[in-house]
Amino acid sequence: MARINEHYRKLAAGYLFPEIGRRVKAFSEANPDARIIRMGIGDVTEPLAPAVIEAMTQAVAEMGNRSTFKGYGPEQGYSFLIDAIRESDYAARGVQIAADEVFVSDGSKCDSANIQEIFDMGARIAVSDPVYPVYVDSNVMAGRTGVNEGNGRYGGLVYLPANEANGFIPSPPSERVDLVYLCSPNNPTGAVATREDLTRWVDWANKNEAVIVFDAAYEAFIRDPNLPRSIYEIPGAKTCALEMRSFSKRAGFTGVRCAFTVVPKELMGTTSTGEKVPFNTLWARRHTTKFNGASYIVQKGAAAAYNAQGLAQTQAQVDFYMENAAILREGLKKTGFTVFGGVHAPYIWIKTHNGATSWDFFNTLLEKTNVVGTPGSGFGAGGEGYFRLSAFNSRENVLEALARIQKAFA
Amino acid sequence: MARINEHYRKLAAGYLFPEIGRRVKAFSEANPDARIIRMGIGDVTEPLAPAVIEAMTQAVAEMGNRSTFKGYGPEQGYSFLIDAIRESDYAARGVQIAADEVFVSDGSKCDSANIQEIFDMGARIAVSDPVYPVYVDSNVMAGRTGVNEGNGRYGGLVYLPANEANGFIPSPPSERVDLVYLCSPNNPTGAVATREDLTRWVDWANKNEAVIVFDAAYEAFIRDPNLPRSIYEIPGAKTCALEMRSFSKRAGFTGVRCAFTVVPKELMGTTSTGEKVPFNTLWARRHTTKFNGASYIVQKGAAAAYNAQGLAQTQAQVDFYMENAAILREGLKKTGFTVFGGVHAPYIWIKTHNGATSWDFFNTLLEKTNVVGTPGSGFGAGGEGYFRLSAFNSRENVLEALARIQKAFA
Repeated sequence: MARINEHYRKLAAGYLFPEIGRRVKAFSEANPDARIIRMGIGDVTEPLAPAVIEAMTQAVAEMGNRSTFKGYGPEQGYSFLIDAIRESDYAARGVQIAADEVFVSDGSKCDSANIQEIFDMGARIAVSDPVYPVYVDSNVMAGRTGVNEGNGRYGGLVYLPANEANGFIPSPPSERVDLVYLCSPNNPTGAVATREDLTRWVDWANKNEAVIVFDAAYEAFIRDPNLPRSIYEIPGAKTCALEMRSFSKRAGFTGVRCAFTVVPKELMGTTSTGEKVPFNTLWARRHTTKFNGASYIVQKGAAAAYNAQGLAQTQAQVDFYMENAAILREGLKKTGFTVFGGVHAPYIWIKTHNGATSWDFFNTLLEKTNVVGTPGSGFGAGGEGYFRLSAFNSRENVLEALARIQKAFA
Repeated sequence: MARINEHYRKLAAGYLFPEIGRRVKAFSEANPDARIIRMGIGDVTEPLAPAVIEAMTQAVAEMGNRSTFKGYGPEQGYSFLIDAIRESDYAARGVQIAADEVFVSDGSKCDSANIQEIFDMGARIAVSDPVYPVYVDSNVMAGRTGVNEGNGRYGGLVYLPANEANGFIPSPPSERVDLVYLCSPNNPTGAVATREDLTRWVDWANKNEAVIVFDAAYEAFIRDPNLPRSIYEIPGAKTCALEMRSFSKRAGFTGVRCAFTVVPKELMGTTSTGEKVPFNTLWARRHTTKFNGASYIVQKGAAAAYNAQGLAQTQAQVDFYMENAAILREGLKKTGFTVFGGVHAPYIWIKTHNGATSWDFFNTLLEKTNVVGTPGSGFGAGGEGYFRLSAFNSRENVLEALARIQKAFA
């Protein structure tokens, strides 16, 4: 009988969000009258910007007409989108990115899961703790780790603590690693790396010949114009970092699906004989062999998020969510919670009430207030005793959730 | 310095279609007045069906309204699409497929590239020769093969000849394999497996405990209602086969991106200790961990291809392409070419003129007629001396290409 990939058996029983879904469903069935407010999964609630709707409506119409119909597009993405990305996301901040360094995809979850494929199976991987689970799980499934050690950690990975002591910004490891995943603004902690933080990481990576996978999916939520939006704003980053971005949160595309990865041509890896190979050619090969391009309609929508109206309208959405974040932050602080994040990121990271475990607090919050959040321990051992609340919601729900929490924990 | 995945270096220099693109571009630049007709890449040309356009236009509008906006959907796909698939593609032909056996994705290229991940790294793989390159390349990149032996074959793979002697339907191997990729109607040969052919494969797989990856991306092009559309029409297939289908050719979705894979719960693999594990749970885990669902707008369009108007309209598109295929078949035969396929598949598979190599014939055809086709050798050693022409084109182009070929090779 065909043997399975047994590395899958190392994975913890359930991916975090399906487990939350199961618990909420059970609670909801037992309490059919409860009006549940979901602040668990970080999913947007505002409708798409009018500029995006207009562009996608037009793109759909084009697909219905023989003279404007589009079949297979370039796997790497259409140049109308790639050029908008290069101009608005990079050149406008002084960073020059070539067209063939941008790879458009159907989502950052896929990109961050797939990127490990272009590295050697023996690559030594570092992740922050707590961490977005996909970085870890994709390496577990590929076989780069040992077993689940029962404390939320897998053998063979290097875990970099992100905690109150370091402001939830991990420091570079002292031991050798080949690949490190960094996420800023951070999911789940809401922390943001400063120019000094990123400079320290870039210098370390160049010195130690390590590669940084920089996940900037939440860069649009940075409020301070002096904070770096891209790791390429740091000198030397092109020789040590690739960067991932998404339209999911910046333009409300969680159900539309579009993202991109930048792989600079200066970013080199090596073969066993010491030959240097650009990771750009490897990722290009993966992208063209195992992916067939993002939907034309979707790419047209994403490009519209860069025109004058689209930029203004999506910025207003981001502003709205960040007002939610500010309301949650201040309200929770007043109620006595210890609160982090929520200033340059749409996530609020709180210490659980009375030192409860993350899942106990999840249950308490659900029962007492019918509010769903995300247990910090779901993001790794370092998240135990913490809890994530998302600012992606209607204002009404944010205010109502806060009122219920204030009443229950006052 | 971080080591690269060196298995990528085993791959032949370029993926087939980019190589064709490069040659056509060079020819076009040297001959700016040539009116090139592209019958190489199998890409649709007809606009989307009005029912699909209507559904996607409405879905875009829903995304612009707070009360109907959709964020993250189920990674496995929306039930409105899954239920349409189960009913129209399976129940209507007497096959019962459960909702949690269907996994909607953004394309069969991705699915067929990703499916190998849930099998053991030591799995012994069989492919037909010639073959759709993605089955091979994805296993090369994962490290399941030896080096490229220079004849289009990789060490460690089992190649099953598909040639004139066996009607381009390979026979099961005599040696042990764990996983075999079958594609019917076939890309590139245009051959179609009969009920007897598939029964032989299913019986062999069940007896030898092998798994069949059945790629049915072209099932809509089968003209004879008595030929099986799904491998599940064969008794016993659910314990040995998973099946892939696509909207790319059936509904013109090459630029829209939607497909699905069926993994029956009866399909089991085994661990090293002999424990049986359903491949369904493994694929579900992969799909939910490394993918975030196909676009809502796209899924709405795909579902519309199953309503009464959508079925009729997409069937008319398929009929149109199959009329093209018939025209090409008969015209090429009259010109003296030996022609296969094109009866239940949109591909015409011809022997090259005067026994030329596939790439020489590619060059000759391009120079003499400005028609682009696909060299058979690009699909593997067994394709040498053959050439693929696609029936996906306007009628005008098909007639013009045929006239030019008849003139050049009469």
